[in-house]
Amino acid sequence: MKDKARKFITIEPPFVFNNKYSFNDPITVAYETLGKLNSKKSNAILITTGLSPSAHISSSNIDKSPGWWEKIIGKNKPVDTDKYFVICVNSLGSCFGSSGPSSSSPQTDKKYKLSFPEVSIEDIAFSIKPVIDALEIQTLKAIIGPSMGGMTALSFIKQYPNIARDLILISTTASSRPFSIALRSLQRSMITSDPDWNEGNYNDADLPLKGMRQARFLGMITYRSPTEWNERFGRKLIKDIAERADLFGNRFQIQDYLRRRSDDFITDFDPNSYLYLSNAIDAFDLTEDCNDIEEAIANFNLDRVLIIGVDEDYIFPFQCQEDLYSAFKTQKNNVDLLKLPSINGHDSFLVDHENFGNSLAKFLK
Amino acid sequence: MKDKARKFITIEPPFVFNNKYSFNDPITVAYETLGKLNSKKSNAILITTGLSPSAHISSSNIDKSPGWWEKIIGKNKPVDTDKYFVICVNSLGSCFGSSGPSSSSPQTDKKYKLSFPEVSIEDIAFSIKPVIDALEIQTLKAIIGPSMGGMTALSFIKQYPNIARDLILISTTASSRPFSIALRSLQRSMITSDPDWNEGNYNDADLPLKGMRQARFLGMITYRSPTEWNERFGRKLIKDIAERADLFGNRFQIQDYLRRRSDDFITDFDPNSYLYLSNAIDAFDLTEDCNDIEEAIANFNLDRVLIIGVDEDYIFPFQCQEDLYSAFKTQKNNVDLLKLPSINGHDSFLVDHENFGNSLAKFLK
Repeated sequence: MKDKARKFITIEPPFVFNNKYSFNDPITVAYETLGKLNSKKSNAILITTGLSPSAHISSSNIDKSPGWWEKIIGKNKPVDTDKYFVICVNSLGSCFGSSGPSSSSPQTDKKYKLSFPEVSIEDIAFSIKPVIDALEIQTLKAIIGPSMGGMTALSFIKQYPNIARDLILISTTASSRPFSIALRSLQRSMITSDPDWNEGNYNDADLPLKGMRQARFLGMITYRSPTEWNERFGRKLIKDIAERADLFGNRFQIQDYLRRRSDDFITDFDPNSYLYLSNAIDAFDLTEDCNDIEEAIANFNLDRVLIIGVDEDYIFPFQCQEDLYSAFKTQKNNVDLLKLPSINGHDSFLVDHENFGNSLAKFLK
Repeated sequence: MKDKARKFITIEPPFVFNNKYSFNDPITVAYETLGKLNSKKSNAILITTGLSPSAHISSSNIDKSPGWWEKIIGKNKPVDTDKYFVICVNSLGSCFGSSGPSSSSPQTDKKYKLSFPEVSIEDIAFSIKPVIDALEIQTLKAIIGPSMGGMTALSFIKQYPNIARDLILISTTASSRPFSIALRSLQRSMITSDPDWNEGNYNDADLPLKGMRQARFLGMITYRSPTEWNERFGRKLIKDIAERADLFGNRFQIQDYLRRRSDDFITDFDPNSYLYLSNAIDAFDLTEDCNDIEEAIANFNLDRVLIIGVDEDYIFPFQCQEDLYSAFKTQKNNVDLLKLPSINGHDSFLVDHENFGNSLAKFLK
């Protein structure tokens, strides 16, 4: 049943990565759609994802397993699939159907691993256009881009200024700042210094689990917020005295929780894909070829823009969303900036469904 | 020349660790003093340290190498050693002369390693009293406790309520919160999962450098602040194109800086000592045997209290200093809380000598 809703398009070669490297294998892009495209093809909403999700954004009759934004997308949900035709694309470089280091070369039938070209956010955005074309959509009603997906959305509109009427940017930025670059650098080094990473040539039986677990542990800490950890865990001790270690083990529930949750993700996501996308986030800069965000978005042809963020986001702090807002505001009046009262830090959009759902529903209505 | 100013006292056994474990070897405590004790023995200032410093707090004629608080302590400096007799103690469990996992048992002449008992902040504080006694000081003019040293100072006064007239707490807390517990847990697991750690039985030629480097890298990120990294590095690229890696290396100056600086500390500090003290910070709770901070400090006999903190301290956020202030305020009027405008996060007291120096000098005058 799983992945049954997934569809694919193929981009014939050459695909020019990072504006410089011409790749001569076909590129596959996986995507899912929910709802029906209306006759005017005017109700399509594209959702570009953060680093880790697949294209499976919500359950349907075809694939009943819950999607990564299950409470936001669907019938009678904030983004109502009775009204909208929702498209979610698995990012190029990821490992859920789209081409990347864990997909196989049609020429050799072997996984590309590190021979897959370095992927940029611009490449991810560029690879989405053929999906929109295949669906014969001229103009999207909206693009919703949370986290890395916000970078992808910005790059997509920079490349195709008339592609969408509305844009919703969530907990994202025009470029990463050094604090989060440093955190991601450390996460990558945790993986690459795991001997099982083996210069990217691990096999499925010997994944660099230790490095992935550490990277995930750091992610779990920094994607949320101190306020959330205080409220949920404080200094509560773990109950099982036998498990309550002396010097080097767990004493507090926060430790136990993070250790257990760090095990969840590590076999689900390809380590090389993680490295590729983490690197792409660091490298992306919407203002790379111009002076500032204002200049970068000068040709964006949008009706409305909504920018959402929260306090205590260590990955893309609210200042990043304020900077985007200021730039859009110079261009047009129809721009809103929302600071939601969520306490879940960067991950709030995945956790605080009520606040984020209400904001999305209100904007779309 | 180095360490020439260091003195030692010996505490005869048994030393009861953590209120439960009786240790039958003598305990050594290393300390340094600067300036002269006056005839009334009323000008002594004790400085309790953070996790990593030695007792060498500032240079002198005896040891001319710069100390860890060189710009704050000394002749004509904010804590003027022409006026005050400054005592700095190397924490029990550390590796700069005081007993700990890297010191040797007099019975076997071998390093204790993990056979050294678990050390608590209370133990560290308790081990300082014999130093004060050896110097024949009844009452300290002041105790200055930054970071972990603030915990030690609080515990010391809890054990000896009349030991000091004034107390200065800097960037510290009555107990660690889950966010920083999580960060320290990860740092410890970086070290203990390095195969070279070898269950604590590494030798000097095979230190767990990889784990120490990662723990230090995370420390460097989180002891400072995003504001500092933005101002110093922004998205500046490293200059040497040859060194500018593609996928997994350094692209940004922040990465290069953190990598280089991570190498500094790792051969200077004993990994087991690091684990012991990191663990002690997590475990410490001034309110362990009572309801709240107010009750915990009820018997503190102090003239004046100054509490200093800064914004963007991820280790002990300003809220921790506010909580201490509120508790002291209920007890007496002579309490001040200062939020300094430093941008260096938790490490501000080691970096922003001007703001911290001025505040200390003003309080002492």
